[in-house]
Order: sequence, then C-alpha cells, then structure tokens
Amino acid sequence: MSVPIIVDCDPGHDDALALWLAAGHPALDLLAVTAVGGNVPLEHTSRNARIVLSVAGVDVPVAAGAAGPLSRELVTAEWIHGENGLGGPDLPEPALPLDPRSATELMADTLEAASEPVAIVATGPLTNVAVLLRDRPDLAPRIREIVWMGGSTERGNATPYAEFNALVDPEALALVLGSGVRFTMVGLNVTHRALVTPAVRTALAAAGTRTAAFGDELLEFFCRTNDEVFGMPDGPLHDPVAVAVLADPGCVELRHTRLDVELTGTETLGATSVDFDGMLGREPNAWVAVGLDVDRFWAGVVDAVARLA
Amino acid sequence: MSVPIIVDCDPGHDDALALWLAAGHPALDLLAVTAVGGNVPLEHTSRNARIVLSVAGVDVPVAAGAAGPLSRELVTAEWIHGENGLGGPDLPEPALPLDPRSATELMADTLEAASEPVAIVATGPLTNVAVLLRDRPDLAPRIREIVWMGGSTERGNATPYAEFNALVDPEALALVLGSGVRFTMVGLNVTHRALVTPAVRTALAAAGTRTAAFGDELLEFFCRTNDEVFGMPDGPLHDPVAVAVLADPGCVELRHTRLDVELTGTETLGATSVDFDGMLGREPNAWVAVGLDVDRFWAGVVDAVARLA
Amino acid sequence: MSVPIIVDCDPGHDDALALWLAAGHPALDLLAVTAVGGNVPLEHTSRNARIVLSVAGVDVPVAAGAAGPLSRELVTAEWIHGENGLGGPDLPEPALPLDPRSATELMADTLEAASEPVAIVATGPLTNVAVLLRDRPDLAPRIREIVWMGGSTERGNATPYAEFNALVDPEALALVLGSGVRFTMVGLNVTHRALVTPAVRTALAAAGTRTAAFGDELLEFFCRTNDEVFGMPDGPLHDPVAVAVLADPGCVELRHTRLDVELTGTETLGATSVDFDGMLGREPNAWVAVGLDVDRFWAGVVDAVARLA
Amino acid sequence: MSVPIIVDCDPGHDDALALWLAAGHPALDLLAVTAVGGNVPLEHTSRNARIVLSVAGVDVPVAAGAAGPLSRELVTAEWIHGENGLGGPDLPEPALPLDPRSATELMADTLEAASEPVAIVATGPLTNVAVLLRDRPDLAPRIREIVWMGGSTERGNATPYAEFNALVDPEALALVLGSGVRFTMVGLNVTHRALVTPAVRTALAAAGTRTAAFGDELLEFFCRTNDEVFGMPDGPLHDPVAVAVLADPGCVELRHTRLDVELTGTETLGATSVDFDGMLGREPNAWVAVGLDVDRFWAGVVDAVARLA
Repeated sequence: MSVPIIVDCDPGHDDALALWLAAGHPALDLLAVTAVGGNVPLEHTSRNARIVLSVAGVDVPVAAGAAGPLSRELVTAEWIHGENGLGGPDLPEPALPLDPRSATELMADTLEAASEPVAIVATGPLTNVAVLLRDRPDLAPRIREIVWMGGSTERGNATPYAEFNALVDPEALALVLGSGVRFTMVGLNVTHRALVTPAVRTALAAAGTRTAAFGDELLEFFCRTNDEVFGMPDGPLHDPVAVAVLADPGCVELRHTRLDVELTGTETLGATSVDFDGMLGREPNAWVAVGLDVDRFWAGVVDAVARLA
Repeated sequence: MSVPIIVDCDPGHDDALALWLAAGHPALDLLAVTAVGGNVPLEHTSRNARIVLSVAGVDVPVAAGAAGPLSRELVTAEWIHGENGLGGPDLPEPALPLDPRSATELMADTLEAASEPVAIVATGPLTNVAVLLRDRPDLAPRIREIVWMGGSTERGNATPYAEFNALVDPEALALVLGSGVRFTMVGLNVTHRALVTPAVRTALAAAGTRTAAFGDELLEFFCRTNDEVFGMPDGPLHDPVAVAVLADPGCVELRHTRLDVELTGTETLGATSVDFDGMLGREPNAWVAVGLDVDRFWAGVVDAVARLA
Repeated sequence: MSVPIIVDCDPGHDDALALWLAAGHPALDLLAVTAVGGNVPLEHTSRNARIVLSVAGVDVPVAAGAAGPLSRELVTAEWIHGENGLGGPDLPEPALPLDPRSATELMADTLEAASEPVAIVATGPLTNVAVLLRDRPDLAPRIREIVWMGGSTERGNATPYAEFNALVDPEALALVLGSGVRFTMVGLNVTHRALVTPAVRTALAAAGTRTAAFGDELLEFFCRTNDEVFGMPDGPLHDPVAVAVLADPGCVELRHTRLDVELTGTETLGATSVDFDGMLGREPNAWVAVGLDVDRFWAGVVDAVARLA
Repeated sequence: MSVPIIVDCDPGHDDALALWLAAGHPALDLLAVTAVGGNVPLEHTSRNARIVLSVAGVDVPVAAGAAGPLSRELVTAEWIHGENGLGGPDLPEPALPLDPRSATELMADTLEAASEPVAIVATGPLTNVAVLLRDRPDLAPRIREIVWMGGSTERGNATPYAEFNALVDPEALALVLGSGVRFTMVGLNVTHRALVTPAVRTALAAAGTRTAAFGDELLEFFCRTNDEVFGMPDGPLHDPVAVAVLADPGCVELRHTRLDVELTGTETLGATSVDFDGMLGREPNAWVAVGLDVDRFWAGVVDAVARLA
C-alpha cells in the first residue's frame, strides 16, 4: 500500500530532489504538485516544478498558488538558488502544462477525489496549506497528515533563531498548527545532516538516468554556491527529508512535543519554539524530527531517482 | 598584575564556585560582591554570598541590590537550588556582615576608589548592573568590562529559546548592551560543557580545605537534584565559566559578534539572538563565548579552591 | 461625469444603506459588488449583498471573496446585526445570482474593463482589497482610490482603541496602506455622527419605494438592537459615510495625515494611529475623515434610496 | 480631618501648581515630596520641587528618586517646559535642602511614621511609585490610594494614543496597576478641560501672594509656549487635577472600570486602554476620571495659592 501525497513546493534545488523522491519512491503515490512563492517568486517556482517533473517523466497536475505570504511581503533567496531558482543546468521548456486551477483548488479536488486521506508534504512557506485549511476546513478530515520542511529546534538560517520557510510566513504556520491536522516539522536540526557529500553525488550520478544527470547539474551549482557563501561545498539538502518521513518512516526519528511559532518577536519572528522538556506545561501538538539515518535517507533518494526517466 | 573584579551574583550552587574562583585565583583581585534576586529571593542570595565567602575566609564587602527585575515579576528556581538557594550543607551563620550600602552604591564606591578600571562579573540577572549603568552612566569608563553568565547561542533552559538569567530580566540585558561598555556573554552553549563529573568532584575534594569540603556538600546536592530532574547527575556548573573568562582568558574562546535580546516576543521573550554570520547586517556589539577548554577550566577551579581556607 | 466604483462589503445593516447610496446616487456608477466575511460569515454577506441589490432593482455582478482575514481567525458581530446579518425584515430569495468568479477576479476584471480608474469603497475588513493588491499589484494604477469605513481617530468599538473592521484584519489594512494607492479612512470619529434619528427614519420612509420600505424594516431592527445593547436607539450608520466621500465630497471633511495600524499590541491590536500633529515626524500617507455635514449626508442617502425600485 | 499625602512629581509648570494645591488646600496634609525624572531630568525636577515649595514657604522633606524609567531610556519635554523645567521666572536658590534619603526611602519612612494610611499623588512617570511597591510590598497597606495624572481615555499627547507620563514608563504603570492598591487615573480626557484662561490667570494673580506672583510668571511662559507650539494660549494645566481628586472629591467625576496599559505595541506603546463598556469582560481594577467641575477646580487652586506665602 503506497501513501497518496500532494507536494507543495517552491523549487529550489532541494525541492527538485524532494519531488523526485516523492515521484519515484515505491511507497508513495504522488497525486498532485502545487507551487508557492518562496525561494524565488511564484512565476519561477510554478515553472520549475513542471520542469523538474517533466525531466523525470512524471505526469501529475501542477498548479500555482500564493505568490506571497498571507500577510507579509515575500522575501526570496535567489542568492542561494540563483535567479530562476534552479541555477545550474540549462532549463528546458516544461512538457507539463500549468493546471488552470489554483493550488488550493487542485488540492481540494485531489483530496475530494481520493479514496483515502491524502498526505501533504510542504517544502516551502506554508501559505498554500494555510489557505486550504482556512478556506476549506471541511477538508481537514481528508488530509492524512501534513509534513513540513521548515523551522528548527536549534538555530535558524534566515535570522539567528528563524528558519527561512518559517520566517517567510509565520502566520501560515500558526494557522496550520491550529487546524488540528497531524503535523510534522522537519527542521534544520535534522536536515543539516543531509549533506550533499562527494559520495552522495557519485551515487546519484551512478543512477545513470536523465533525471540523475539533470540532478547532478543542479547539485554541482548547489555545492559551488554553498562553497562560495558558507565556505563548505557539502551543503544540506533540506526538502527531501520531509518526503522521507512518509516514504521511509524508519529513517527519520520523530518526537511528539509542543511546537509554537513566534509571531510578535522583534528579534525572533518566525522562531519555532519546541518544548521538548515540557517547560511550558502545554499539551503536545506536533511531531518534530530529531534524528536522521543519513545513509538510509540517501539510499532512498538515489533509488527513487534511478526509478525515474 | 591581577585583574580587579566585582562579582554580582545570586547564589546558588554554581555562584558559590564562581565566588571561590574569583577569590582564590591568583590572576584576580576580588574587591566586592553584590547580590541580586534570581535563583532565590534576595534575602537568601545576599546571605548566601556572605556564607560562601565566610567559609572560604574571604573578607570583602557584600551588599544587597535589587530584589527583583527592573520591570517584571521575579521568577526564581528553588526547584534546582533548594529553598534557601544552597541546598545540601548545613548553612553556618555568615561571619561577614551585610554592607549597609546598596549594591549599586557599593559598586560605585568600589569603582571610584580603584586605581584602574574594574571588571564586573555577573552570574545572575543583570538587574544590579543595569541599575548601576542607568543611574551612574558617568562610571562607565571606570568599568573595565562586564562578563555575564547568561543567555545562549542555541536553546535555552527556562523556555525553549531563553536562558534563565536572560528571561528573568531581559530589559536589564538590553540596557547593559546599550551602555557601550565591553560586554561578554557566557551562555549555555559553552557552560553546558562544564559538567560536574565524578572526576571533577574527586579532584575538588582532594584539595582538602574547608572550602573544598563545603563545596563537595553543595555539589552532592547539585548532582543529586540534576539526576532527579534531568536524569543526569553530571550537571553543568554555569557561573564559574564567566569568572574563568577573566581569570584565565585562554580557556574560553570568544567571538566578537552581534547580540540582541528579544523584548517583545510571545514565545521567545529573553532569547539572546547572536548573529555569528552577520545575517542581519548589524555591527558587532559583544563578545560571545563559543568554546571552553574543559580540563583547563576545572584545573583552575580546583586550584583556586585549594588556595582558600 | 459619474465616478465608477466597486463596493466591497459585509452586509450588515449599514452596508445595505451603503450599497443603495452607491447604486442610487447620480454621481456614482456602481460597477460591481464583492462580499467579505466580517459582520457575519461570508455565506451570509455574499447572499445579503445580492438580496439588498435585488430589492433595489440593481443589476451588477456580485462575487464572494475571503471568508476570513488574511492570517487570523474571523470574529463576527451577530450580536448587533442578527444571526443572518440583516436582522429585521423577512429576507426574500435574491434575484441576483452569485458571480462564479472570486471577489478578486471580479474586481480585477472590472478594473481591466473600465475605461478609467475605478474607486473601491470598502465597508468591511479590508481582506479582499488586500488580496487584490497583493496578488495583482499591476492593477494598482487602475484603482482611482480606496475609501474605507473603519478605524477611528479616537476610541474604538471592538476594544477600547480598535474599531471592528480594523481589528478583524489589521494586516490587510497594513498591506493596503503600503500599496501606495490613495487611501481614505472614514472612521468612528465621523461615522458616530451619522445617527439614525426618528427624523432620518421618517424622511427615508417618505421615499415611498420598495427599497425604502425594506430599509425601514432594517432600521427598525437596528435601532431596537442599539437601544437594547447601548441604551440609545439612534445608532450610527457607519458604512454609507464612506460612499458619501465619493458621492458628495463636500459633505465629508478630510485631512491628509499619517495613519499607521497597530499589529503587535497586546491591548491595542488594530488601533489606527492617526498623527494629526506630526508628533512622529513621518510623511502623510492617507486621508482621514474628520468632519461630516450630517444633514447633507442624510439628504443624499434619502435621495439615492428614492431613485431605486 | 485632612488627608495625609505625599506628592511625587517632575516639575514642570503644572507640577508647581499641583504642589501648591497640595500644600495650601485645607483638606490636605502634605507630608513629603519626591521628584522623578520626567518633564526634565532629575537634577532639575528635584531642584524645582524645592524651589516651588520654598517660594510658597512650605517646609516638607523633598527627596530625589529615579533619574529615568524602570527599563527604558528617559524621554523629556524641554520643548514645552523650558530647559530647566520651570521656564519663565528667574529661579531663586531653593531654601529647602535635598533630603539625603532616596525618594523611596522618604516615602517608606513617611508611610511608616504616619498614624493612618497616606495617599500618594503622582504627577509624572510612575517610576518612583513602582519602585516603592516593588521593593517594599509590605507597605502597600500603608498607602491609602494612589492618584496619578497620566494616560488618557481618548487620544494621547506624546503619540497619537499615548500620554507623555504613560509613554515614559509604561512598565511602572503596569507594576502599580498590578499592586492592588486603589488607583485613580486622571488623564488627558479630563485635564484637557483645566485650561489656563485669562480669567484663571486674573483670579490667580488677584491672590496677591508671593506664590501667586511667581505662579503668574510661570503661567505667562506656559501660555506663551502653548500659543507658539499649539496656536492656543489657553493650555491645559494637567497635574493639579490629580491633587483635586483628593482635595475636593466632588469636583472630579470618577468611574470604576478596567484599565490596562500597552507594553508591546509598535505604534501604541504606553496607550492606556480603558474599557468603560466592559468589551473585554475583565474585572474593574481602577478608577478613571471622566468629568471635571472646571470652575470649582480653579476656585480650589486659587484659594490654596492664596493661603500660601
């Protein structure tokens, strides 16, 4: 039995690998993909998602959602992903068309048409998911769970205590947390271990597929940029870890705990406050990733990419 | 040449060791001690400071300062330090009297009387130091530097992102940071390495002094409480690390960086936001401890205790 | 030359009169109506808008927009408007259908189709207008101006310093203020003068139209509820005053000044801070209503209602 | 039976009149005066208080308290009070010495020595009163009540929604409100009616005393500055109204209601949120002035001044 999933993303190099893991892993059944403004503006992310899927020969509907956060200005990250969000390879025209529906319409239709509850994996700001839950609360029971790459139990990467996806739309995270749908946060504390080492690149390239070749060009750019910006070529590939939570639950260790997001802080807006020790005396409301079997994770990614075109 | 220092503290088990390190280390010249409400209320901390110094045969003026934070209710931590703040040994009557001056008066008189600028080490909430700088800004040039045990570059211990001393009086930290006096934060990220292991306890007891014996009773209680509360007997002895920055600069690694404290956050009040990577583009304004030579640190503590009564 | 306008509303008794003033006043050309969740949920406001227009024989497209604020839970006001938002008369089935487009799509199409920039009058939370400006910033030049009933230069009516429409979606107000489109706030400080006195009710009823009769039933309920809740039957009819700014500019006095909205306050969320005296030294960014020619205003309302079915 | 009172003030022109009303009114027994940094720095306010009392031949202890707010930078108002805070007359050397005790020590000693609870009237930022209640909570039962000139139920005068004394030290107000001591706020909504008209000045000058003559010089400067700054010579004399609440309770109308102060607002810091209508459903915790018998108020001020030297 495979798990039916929707991926909401903002490709982005690591989103590309997340999409391929979602499409290629035998334990998952990718039903639809939606794009959100995040790493780069929506016009790029909605095109990039289609390129990434087209390269891999995956045919699912792809719709564009929110161009920016619920109630803030969009901040993007071209400095790490390049101007078009997929710096590195020459980008082909996507074979997949853009679905005329909005992201939330596509998600809603997908949830309603499925024979069982569908999981949503979000690898960008949670805007689209928040809009879905805000405008269609009746669909909450149709969502199996939400797994999100974002936040951190430790330091952030956009400000000292805030991770990028959380900082971009903290109110969206708060709305999703408040929805009552099972929620898993896969934060920097774990994704920082998913490093693109030379061994990883070699294994991926060895898959020998068109997808693997395209991926290798993405990772070459990614590692070069990491080297230039952080002085470390082996950058962390955050987003696929969120997919791995559903594809191979055994490779990510989760804890049921309390998660709150800072909405009013001057220095710490978007910080994800995870109360492992119950210092605040509140009820657990989320699952939070705390460990990663790194080898097993990468084996799953490579295997999935090898199964694609 | 020894460094003249004032210690402002809220004993507390780790404050006791900090006072002994300050009094016994040959590189330091302890001029005065002031107490602040923190771990336990002021009536206890101002008495405990005198007990701890009396046991060690140290004769310096000890004054009581602020009973609570500048503008908030005091939160205390009896659950870890015991009702009187020095759980463990039978506490003798202190031989040292309480100085009739307020903490800020004693600090001001000490600064004015000294022949060179004096360092202040604070191991509790920064209330007394903030009051001094607020009410006597003319004395800032008489302060060599301020070294504070508090804050964290990672997670906190009072809330997920706030350390206890920072949370108790975040406005005091903001005032001190804004004063322009050289400021060093020695946070949980480093003090968590100063663990009271059995080897540390053995070495300390081997000093054979009255102080060492009293200290061993303190640490027995401290380790037992840590075991009961955290399931780990080897608890971290935070406060002496701040003294070590002055006593033996080589044993604590510092970075010059940006430090801001969260004053308006709902979930993250008191978080110390340390921008190592310059993500915020602000000027460095503080030194932050990032490394500790653990063995060298403990050797210094044991040596100092051995020099006392 | 009449002014082309779109009305975005959440009927609501006073919204009904605002719609009739917009439809019946010869100086205005009502092109479209959009509904937002506010006084009562969207399912009611989008139906009520169509009922109110149908009764008056007005045929314009009516679309439903946001069910709730950008990033907060919707708070409604059934206690003043009744469960369905138009307490009082038996509500007929609306003759007008619901436009299949979303509110922002209808607004966008209307703006694009018009031969000149179109004014938007908003009489509820600014969610729909904010979504339009956020998702279609290219259309800003097609908007002649935005006039909003909401906020206050004095006290509020939802909390001591916040007016209901501002409190429901303060982030929407901030986004609209930041858009650069000319913005006029018509707040409680002025609308509190638009009291439904017995003389007003008599004059309105004397119009003798179906609309006037329906309106009289609305105002009877409205005055009775005001009497029960506030001990004052002559309640203020807020929303039509915003329409009057465009219909008869001479009857509302405006000042060009600084307007900011409180987004982080604990006690004052949604307060509209209007700096008439330039105390903050910021540039004026809005027009704010400060005076109302009450008799002229009511004469305009009565005249408009008399021109409808 | 006269009411024993302590006046805590930051003279300031209107503080001068408040002190004379407190000293000269037969219903009051002025026991002590304390100064706080506010309108101008503490060195001026503590001197001005002694000058004002010396001119009037009043002999009470005067002590200096907090130079600035609990946890913020002091903001002053020389632009309205002049550089020394008492612009206008040539200032004589004060006959009264500065008491060596701190303001809180003097207040504490006065409260302890009195045979009945003593009222405190505060006409500046509430810092001194907050320090007293924070450091000596045991004295709360010795305080009959606290009456404060500050805040507003309507607009502010330092920012659109914050009055000067409230904005300078909002945390002090919060601490005092939380103390449980009976608290009365006399805000701008009422003090704005205590205008220094030509008739008032004539009546005051007619008292013919040295105090009246000195007061007239103060008011001439005050009215001229008001004219230059606000285009209105008849400025409001805020502070004496707080004294009048105790001197002649019948001339100020009070309501028992809910009062909260904004501590986290970006635009509205220090706003006093007064919930007359119980919109927030909280318990009343303060008395708030809502009306003033202006003629009776001024008659009392003139009469008091006439009784002084």
